Amino acid sequence: MNRTAINLHDKLALFSEHWSPRVVAEMNDVQFKLVKLRGEFVWHAHEDTDEVFIVLDGELVIEFRDGDVRLATGEMYVVPKGVEHRPVAVNECCVMLAEPRGVVNTGDAGGAYTAANDVWV
Amino acid sequence: MNRTAINLHDKLALFSEHWSPRVVAEMNDVQFKLVKLRGEFVWHAHEDTDEVFIVLDGELVIEFRDGDVRLATGEMYVVPKGVEHRPVAVNECCVMLAEPRGVVNTGDAGGAYTAANDVWV
Repeated sequence: MNRTAINLHDKLALFSEHWSPRVVAEMNDVQFKLVKLRGEFVWHAHEDTDEVFIVLDGELVIEFRDGDVRLATGEMYVVPKGVEHRPVAVNECCVMLAEPRGVVNTGDAGGAYTAANDVWV
Repeated sequence: MNRTAINLHDKLALFSEHWSPRVVAEMNDVQFKLVKLRGEFVWHAHEDTDEVFIVLDGELVIEFRDGDVRLATGEMYVVPKGVEHRPVAVNECCVMLAEPRGVVNTGDAGGAYTAANDVWV
């Protein structure tokens, strides 16, 4: 059994790519991932699961078809399953995601922003 | 659909009791709870689930029968299911827990520290 705490700041320092989630922990079938966001992501939905966003550093807008949610450091939001959304960050924003193992970042949309899954840091 | 971000600092300001988790969000069947810890909890295990601890403010020791894990602000740890542990915080420590809906804080131990479940803040 690993007796080492997971330091989120230290983990974030280990990568610089945007829109490329890195797994840091698993609880049962749920993965906790760190991701750095900057710019406008693609519109997408996750048909089978909710998705948690926790902002660790920066500001994030989650756009929905009928309105936006604005998140600052220390704020979280749960995107309900099946709901189209688009994360947008004017400046770099560091986020922790929580979602079941196997969720792909671009959901049903695919495309150039689709990141490799289950990459640990 | 609620379009309001969940501000963890603001939610923590709404209660003062120790060892009394308050739910702030749900993702599928997983609840995210805030809890304030101070002192020594009871030894217990959760036979059916892992349990995530994310330290939002303060210092936390998670004691295990064969060693301790020390967590500072911005650090997290996953206690594996079935493993006896005891959270200890010399000074007040604010933590976010993630675990399936229905998990009782004292696990298999019961006793005076057992908190009401599914209490939202």
